[in-house]
Amino acid sequence: MNRQQLVEQIFLKRSYLCIGLDSDNEKIPSHLLKSEDPVFEFNKQIIDSTRDLCVGYKINTAFYESAGVKGWQTMEKTVSYIGDAHLVIADAKRGDIGNTSSQYAKAFFETIPFCAITVAPYMGHDSVKPFLQYANKWTILLGLTSNPGAEDFEMKKIIIESETLDEGVHIKNSSQKFLYEHVLQTAAGWGSEENLMFVIGATQAAEFINIRKIVPNHFFLVPGIGAQGGSLKEISAKAMTPDCGLLVNASRSVIFASAAKDFADAARTEAKKYQAEMDSYLPR
Amino acid sequence: MNRQQLVEQIFLKRSYLCIGLDSDNEKIPSHLLKSEDPVFEFNKQIIDSTRDLCVGYKINTAFYESAGVKGWQTMEKTVSYIGDAHLVIADAKRGDIGNTSSQYAKAFFETIPFCAITVAPYMGHDSVKPFLQYANKWTILLGLTSNPGAEDFEMKKIIIESETLDEGVHIKNSSQKFLYEHVLQTAAGWGSEENLMFVIGATQAAEFINIRKIVPNHFFLVPGIGAQGGSLKEISAKAMTPDCGLLVNASRSVIFASAAKDFADAARTEAKKYQAEMDSYLPR
Repeated sequence: MNRQQLVEQIFLKRSYLCIGLDSDNEKIPSHLLKSEDPVFEFNKQIIDSTRDLCVGYKINTAFYESAGVKGWQTMEKTVSYIGDAHLVIADAKRGDIGNTSSQYAKAFFETIPFCAITVAPYMGHDSVKPFLQYANKWTILLGLTSNPGAEDFEMKKIIIESETLDEGVHIKNSSQKFLYEHVLQTAAGWGSEENLMFVIGATQAAEFINIRKIVPNHFFLVPGIGAQGGSLKEISAKAMTPDCGLLVNASRSVIFASAAKDFADAARTEAKKYQAEMDSYLPR
Repeated sequence: MNRQQLVEQIFLKRSYLCIGLDSDNEKIPSHLLKSEDPVFEFNKQIIDSTRDLCVGYKINTAFYESAGVKGWQTMEKTVSYIGDAHLVIADAKRGDIGNTSSQYAKAFFETIPFCAITVAPYMGHDSVKPFLQYANKWTILLGLTSNPGAEDFEMKKIIIESETLDEGVHIKNSSQKFLYEHVLQTAAGWGSEENLMFVIGATQAAEFINIRKIVPNHFFLVPGIGAQGGSLKEISAKAMTPDCGLLVNASRSVIFASAAKDFADAARTEAKKYQAEMDSYLPR
């Protein structure tokens, strides 16, 4: 799914909601546990009841890997069940030396046909670029995350040194920025607005206006509303582009809205609330 | 496997070699391709021929995930085949918000009984600590990696601000260090020398003496000798502790020493070379 197709879906559905299938086996309704693949049955019903309200589904690979081989089977079946009409994201936070990242790209873009994968930036350019080689696929790089640990490194000030030439004299300049700002600025040069998005946590609303100065047009995947407490209104006001430029993810607040037999209806009700609010923020 | 047991194995075998099972399906000898699970057959023969020469095996999860469900089956079988006498590392570079990292820890410490997992530090403390909750398991955090991209962020200077009290007056201090140094120093406080190691690439030998000043006793997992060009002699001279404190990994240079039917013997020959060299560096 390319940017134009994604934007079309957003304006057609009046929604930039992504639903996170963090389908924890211990939290799904107990009546499903007797089915052959409880997590897949859960996902299927959630997907059926929310397809028209969201433009993406995000599969948090950890919740599938924790079940081992069976979990990978569930993940493959779920991706296949969602189909091509949604942006299907592997929230996998991968990243390694070049030849290894190439294998991860193969895993999530070819073996399982996800549209997008989240990638961790720590190891730098050769750990990210293999993902960017695929046409019509998205690399979603961690920028500023929604968790308390974002303070430890992402929000540390770093020193950027550069050199200018003034009347034949080399002058060394030094400026400061947050690590996450340097990640956004540097990585923006590795891909384009057509194949690279950034993860910006909804709990970091104070930073959104500043972030849009660095990367004015890239799509952001924004987790952290719902269970983590970020404000949909605030991030939409501060970070929306003319073609939206936002995918806002809700996981637990939608999929675990009810633990009873009505869980799929309850998920729809929650998703509908988000969609209605998004409708009011999207340009007409 | 705890530190004491690991050190015992190192001095018993006179080896601190870890063999990386980056078992790329496209590089394994062609005569194996007709077996039911070629990568497992390959791994089995490599393991059989090198068990006595190494103290650890490192499974690069990317090379298994690229084969999907079948790859995860191969990974599970391989870990089970290695058994308890080696430190078995999931080279997975995982890390996410707390509840998600807990699922990754479950995946690699419980569902598949690895002894250790590599973890990426970008998201900070709550992304790392869930791995450190397991007794007799190891978290191996990325410090300074062996790849060219290490320059992009790991080697950037950051500003550390602190405050001291001098005769009742608060004085602000500011110092500079590399991001990777700050990661080592900060993360050392999250775990102990008994459950936390760091990845330090062999190609970064110039930094090793400095790194040992920051974390004098932690074990390092050192990739980057062999195909990536790091020097075993140099890192051993600069970073060995009285109880060794090093696990040096070789992947491609051992497992792909020959692409013919003698591949397991060729792997043994290469592993033996590393072991003999390590023997000469280890204290008696």
